Amino acid sequence: MKAPAPELKAVIMAGGSGTRFWPLSRRRSPKQFLPIAGSRTMIEETVERILPLIPYRNILTVAGREHTRTILRLLPKLPKKNTLVEPLARNTAPSLILATASVYLLNPRAAVAVLASDHLIGDPALFRRKLQAAASAATAGECLVTFGIPPTFPSTGYGYIHYRKDESRKTAGEAFFPVLAFKEKPTEAQARAFLSEGGYFWNSGMFVWRADVFAAKLEEYSPEFYPFWGRTLDALRAHSPSKLKAVFSEMPAISIDYALMEKARGVVVCKGDFGWSDVGAWSSLFDVWKRDRAGNSFQGDVLAVDTGGTLCFNPGKFTALIGCRDLIVVNTRDALLICPRSQDQRVKEVLEHLVGRGARKHL
Amino acid sequence: MKAPAPELKAVIMAGGSGTRFWPLSRRRSPKQFLPIAGSRTMIEETVERILPLIPYRNILTVAGREHTRTILRLLPKLPKKNTLVEPLARNTAPSLILATASVYLLNPRAAVAVLASDHLIGDPALFRRKLQAAASAATAGECLVTFGIPPTFPSTGYGYIHYRKDESRKTAGEAFFPVLAFKEKPTEAQARAFLSEGGYFWNSGMFVWRADVFAAKLEEYSPEFYPFWGRTLDALRAHSPSKLKAVFSEMPAISIDYALMEKARGVVVCKGDFGWSDVGAWSSLFDVWKRDRAGNSFQGDVLAVDTGGTLCFNPGKFTALIGCRDLIVVNTRDALLICPRSQDQRVKEVLEHLVGRGARKHL
Repeated sequence: MKAPAPELKAVIMAGGSGTRFWPLSRRRSPKQFLPIAGSRTMIEETVERILPLIPYRNILTVAGREHTRTILRLLPKLPKKNTLVEPLARNTAPSLILATASVYLLNPRAAVAVLASDHLIGDPALFRRKLQAAASAATAGECLVTFGIPPTFPSTGYGYIHYRKDESRKTAGEAFFPVLAFKEKPTEAQARAFLSEGGYFWNSGMFVWRADVFAAKLEEYSPEFYPFWGRTLDALRAHSPSKLKAVFSEMPAISIDYALMEKARGVVVCKGDFGWSDVGAWSSLFDVWKRDRAGNSFQGDVLAVDTGGTLCFNPGKFTALIGCRDLIVVNTRDALLICPRSQDQRVKEVLEHLVGRGARKHL
Repeated sequence: MKAPAPELKAVIMAGGSGTRFWPLSRRRSPKQFLPIAGSRTMIEETVERILPLIPYRNILTVAGREHTRTILRLLPKLPKKNTLVEPLARNTAPSLILATASVYLLNPRAAVAVLASDHLIGDPALFRRKLQAAASAATAGECLVTFGIPPTFPSTGYGYIHYRKDESRKTAGEAFFPVLAFKEKPTEAQARAFLSEGGYFWNSGMFVWRADVFAAKLEEYSPEFYPFWGRTLDALRAHSPSKLKAVFSEMPAISIDYALMEKARGVVVCKGDFGWSDVGAWSSLFDVWKRDRAGNSFQGDVLAVDTGGTLCFNPGKFTALIGCRDLIVVNTRDALLICPRSQDQRVKEVLEHLVGRGARKHL
């Protein structure tokens, strides 16, 4: 006899400050609120993608107060009570304790799918199938499920998940592999070794767990955080923002990976081969936007003479590129950025300079 | 007994369309009308530079009707009758026949100094001394005087003047060398040979001649153009724009170099070592604007991270450059240009493309 499908809640993490798409993204308009990868904002696309599986009433968001206002504007069908407000920005462990505790109070046995608001999924139908299977696996197996991305190159920008590739359990037709270890962002040599050895995925930062199982794992493997779980439940039951803020301010501002996933047993990983991209910097848009035969990706009226491998975002005015090779060019209303595509991770240095000189205008 | 100083008229050629500073320069606002090299427009600086020597009443301009309106706006002290209007844009030979004939009707023995409206002179006092000496030489010697620039590198972008370096005549303390030949823009090998051989100047395009001597040289060495001299005088005497337009439309649209200078005897050259630059393209501004220690020249609020040899003009908004090497970046109200500094001559290709696609907007 088949068990009924578990209740599945989505928690969309939307607190990110999205500095890597400066000058398009700003403090008040981070990547998830920009139509970077399509005609709609990334958070709208995130919701659209899961709606066939998870209705609005089961979708929650976690973000600060200001971002939450933007979320409600962009997603008018989302019930306001589903928008969880972080009292402070304290990394993902506090946020996910808040979100999972909120679900727990509604249904302790509900499955929680933790999703980013600013990732891209190339095959949404496959993604939904795997998400549903992960919910079943998390419910039946009382385990923490992660999504691992098959690495395509020895990236030093992602954490890795080392899994037991010769041993998997099938749930709803999908394979779930036992996780051996979480590996922090490696050196390039380490990353190359991971790829040649096999049995490694990139850590996508997407998770599925049953609310009560999450609590039990916290209790067993994260003595540092478990007391905050109870205090968070108390604050939520009391509907007390000030109590919640007090709990938040005491929690270490670390990621859920550090706080729980790396320490817990009973963690499994599902292969996330659904065309995932975290669209982590300007050059990742080469894979998202249309490319011409010279490998250029343009948004705007761009005239390219003898130019290749160049990404140009300048929707507002005419651009002429002559003899450019592998450049990123971004021109917004009030700022212009130019850098080689290999150095797009250094955009944060500009922001540091701006902070350093006390200029809030372009942040 | 010393002869009285000859009357000296300046003819400022302001008809240029200045495409090489696109997107800052446009058809209606060519380089001479832009404050590219200082706080005032280049034509204002050109006039300012000669005023201690030549008063407004002796300064004439030559340009089309539209440019002439701009000239009168920029130079309100210039008598309107001194702004000669070309009925058609027909290169420098027709323009200088018009200008010299206009002076001839006022005083056939006046000296005419032909100057560009968009050149830079580093040492204006020396320039004025040489200009005055050239006027004396042209008057006394009944010759055509040119200014030659000591070449600093084997440029293929200028014409060259081959002169007899071991034979000069002094006038007013300045040496005037007999010209052996005008050489068109050479190949790089030729240019290198010119420099190693010695006895070559760059052709600055600045000349001094007595109006009646110019006419006599035309008669003797340019039978093709001499008939137009008489017809131009007739049209001017008749105050007939339609007659002048008819003459202009029949004159070959060639430069005064081709039409007269290359053919004439009795041409001398004066060493133009007064810090001349024709500011011929964006990269020439590296020598005009202030440079930082990394060899960058910026106009605007520019944050440069690990960037060198880069020229950035973006006065209107903030610019962040990361890891840029030897780039030209120009951002104006409605267009953005990016190209390596070694390829700034290719800006004209952009204009050709724009003309080709029928876009008048950015021209």
